Amino acid sequence: MSEETVDLVKRLKIVEGHVRGVQRMVDEGAYCIDILRQTLAIRRALEKFDALVLDRHLHHCVTEAIRSSDSADQERALAEILEIFAATRA
Amino acid sequence: MSEETVDLVKRLKIVEGHVRGVQRMVDEGAYCIDILRQTLAIRRALEKFDALVLDRHLHHCVTEAIRSSDSADQERALAEILEIFAATRA
Amino acid sequence: MSEETVDLVKRLKIVEGHVRGVQRMVDEGAYCIDILRQTLAIRRALEKFDALVLDRHLHHCVTEAIRSSDSADQERALAEILEIFAATRA
Amino acid sequence: MSEETVDLVKRLKIVEGHVRGVQRMVDEGAYCIDILRQTLAIRRALEKFDALVLDRHLHHCVTEAIRSSDSADQERALAEILEIFAATRA
Repeated sequence: MSEETVDLVKRLKIVEGHVRGVQRMVDEGAYCIDILRQTLAIRRALEKFDALVLDRHLHHCVTEAIRSSDSADQERALAEILEIFAATRA
Repeated sequence: MSEETVDLVKRLKIVEGHVRGVQRMVDEGAYCIDILRQTLAIRRALEKFDALVLDRHLHHCVTEAIRSSDSADQERALAEILEIFAATRA
Repeated sequence: MSEETVDLVKRLKIVEGHVRGVQRMVDEGAYCIDILRQTLAIRRALEKFDALVLDRHLHHCVTEAIRSSDSADQERALAEILEIFAATRA
Repeated sequence: MSEETVDLVKRLKIVEGHVRGVQRMVDEGAYCIDILRQTLAIRRALEKFDALVLDRHLHHCVTEAIRSSDSADQERALAEILEIFAATRA
């Protein structure tokens, strides 16, 4: 496993632990606002994870697709970025 | 535990399982875009969870605070909603 | 007009001028990334505007509705906040 | 001006008119929730505009940069996409 992959999995393990922590908070009747602050932190952590995945994707898959002579591959690579972009903000 | 609490915990367990599924995808070298589609689904699930928590919060804590005669409580309750609102969109 | 209203209108006039500025950039063939940086700034300004409107709304309309003895009014006030919250993040 | 540019400018003119409409609403003391619904619609229109600009950017500037032999140009093109991506969701 590459160092990058190890880092990505580690980040998700932290997110997983964080989600379990929020389960306990809900179980124990924590204050709603404190729960919302924690789920916000989880979403921020997922956004950071996504940024790293997209970085890797642009530097490898997209760069290769654009340099290839296969125009269908190129178009698919760009369409996928636009799809992710539209989905994250909409 | 109230029915609402049971539902909230169940939703978080599903999120937790989903996060573990993405770990496996990363481990096994899944395509980046497929990973991003899954983390987007996780964030949508967390947003739905947050909406339910906020709903409960408005109907109980905020309603009580506003009806109380304690103006510091009232102000705190409104300030917290504005804080969450600003944090989720900024 | 209250001071608050004057401030809100002034903020929208700045947004309007900003949007016209981006029209000129597009017209003159500005670099795409520079255009996107400007539209991001416009959205940040609108988010700040929204936060001020919501603040006012919570302190006046919502507070009055919750204190009224009309439970339909109360429910509507809370449902509208949840609607705005869901729409801004989804 | 290309057809694409004409379309982009037209979209911004509609946004500009929409912002002026919200100014009138504020001036005339419209209900806060109705104001927030309109600013949400404006932000949706800006997001659609951004998606079109990004589409054009990926198909032209980014594709050219990646095909060029200038690795600094390539890196800058990818870094800018990541910047926009991080800014829109954070």
